[in-house]
Amino acid sequence: MAARTPFPRDSEAKLQHILHHAANVFAELGYERASIRDLSRVTGVSLSGLYYYFRSKQNLLYLIQLKAFTDILQSLQNRLLGVSDPQERFRIFIHNHLEYFLSHPAEMKVLSHEEDALEKPYRSEIAAIKRRYYNLAREIFDDLLGERSGAGVNPRIAVLSLYGMMNWIYKWHNPKVDPDARQLSENIAAIFLYGVLNSPKSTRHSRESDLTLERVAIGK
Amino acid sequence: MAARTPFPRDSEAKLQHILHHAANVFAELGYERASIRDLSRVTGVSLSGLYYYFRSKQNLLYLIQLKAFTDILQSLQNRLLGVSDPQERFRIFIHNHLEYFLSHPAEMKVLSHEEDALEKPYRSEIAAIKRRYYNLAREIFDDLLGERSGAGVNPRIAVLSLYGMMNWIYKWHNPKVDPDARQLSENIAAIFLYGVLNSPKSTRHSRESDLTLERVAIGK
Repeated sequence: MAARTPFPRDSEAKLQHILHHAANVFAELGYERASIRDLSRVTGVSLSGLYYYFRSKQNLLYLIQLKAFTDILQSLQNRLLGVSDPQERFRIFIHNHLEYFLSHPAEMKVLSHEEDALEKPYRSEIAAIKRRYYNLAREIFDDLLGERSGAGVNPRIAVLSLYGMMNWIYKWHNPKVDPDARQLSENIAAIFLYGVLNSPKSTRHSRESDLTLERVAIGK
Repeated sequence: MAARTPFPRDSEAKLQHILHHAANVFAELGYERASIRDLSRVTGVSLSGLYYYFRSKQNLLYLIQLKAFTDILQSLQNRLLGVSDPQERFRIFIHNHLEYFLSHPAEMKVLSHEEDALEKPYRSEIAAIKRRYYNLAREIFDDLLGERSGAGVNPRIAVLSLYGMMNWIYKWHNPKVDPDARQLSENIAAIFLYGVLNSPKSTRHSRESDLTLERVAIGK
C-alpha cells in the first residue's frame, strides 16, 4: 500500500472523518475545482493538520478510492464466509454493493467521476483492487451459471451490465420514494436472474406484488 | 428553445463540427477545466468565430446535451414508426440508445458527468427533454409487460436499471474485444427480458452459443 504518512493508531477515526468530508467536497465541486483549503474549512482542521493525514490532493483521492474498495471487498468476503449456495452468494454480492453505495453517495460519485483524475502510481493500484473485485463478482456469477456456462449469456457483458444496473443508482435513487438497499437488491437480483418477462403473473398490486417479487428474489 | 444566436443555415455543419469537438474537450478535461481557448485551438476557429455559434460556455454545454437528446429521441421515434410489436419496439429502443452512445463516447461522458454543471435556465430544459425520453421508454416498457403489469416488477426500478445497463457501457466498452451495438443490444435485451438463469441450456460454446442467444434475443 503506497504513500500515506504513518500516524498513531488513535488518529484512524480522524482520518476516516477527513476522508468522508473530502469525498463530499470532491463530489460537490469536482476533484479539479476542489481545494485542500475547502476541505480545511469543512472539517475545521488546519492545512498543516490535514497534511499530517495525506501527502497531496492526489494522495487524498487515492485514499478515498482505496478505502471504498477495501471496505466493500472486506465486507463482501466476510458475508460470503460459510455460504455455498450460488444464488445466495450472488444476492449477498448485490446487497453488499448497494448497501455500501446507498449509504456512501458522495464516494459513489467520486469513484464514478474521478476515475481518470487519478495519476500514477495510484491509478494502477486502484485498478488492481477493482480487478480483484470484478474477478470475485465474475467467480460468483460463473458459479451461478454452473453447467449453463455454455449457454447464450456472454459472461463479461452480463457481469458488467449488472455493475451498470447497480452503479447507475446514484443518478436516480431518491430515498423518499425508492426502496432501501435490501429491497432494491432483491429487485435487481430478480430482474437479472429471471428477467422481466419471466416474473410470475399476479392480479394483485403494490404490497402483495412486492411480496411476490421477494419470493422470486429469494428463490421460492 | 433558448439561447442560441441565430445564424445562416449553411453554418449548421460548422456548428455540428464545433459541438462535436467541444464534447471531446469537455470529456477530456472536464467542463470546469476546459476553456473556450482550448476549443479554439482544437477546432481552428477563432474565439470571436466561436462566439458566433454560442453565447457562453454554459450555452455550449447546453447545446451539446440538447443535440444528443434531440438526436436520440428523433431517431427512436422514426424507427418506431409503424412497428407495433411490443418486444420489437423494446429492442429498437435499446439498439437506438446503444448505437448512438457507442458512436458518441465523448457525448456520453459529458452527459453523464456534467449533468450538475448545467445551470438555470438550461438545466430545466434539459431535464424536460430527458423526462420525455424516460417517459417514452416507460411507455415501451409498460406495453411490453402488458397484462403482467400487476406482477412483481417495480417498473421504475426496472426501467432505470435498464438505463444503468446501457449507460454504464462507456466505462467498459472496448471496441477491440466487445461486440458492436447490434449484438450488445441483443445481449442486454435478452438478459433484461429473460434473465441469465432462463437462457436456454446449450452444450455448444462460442459462435454457436452466440447464435442461441441471438435466437432468444429476437424472440424465436
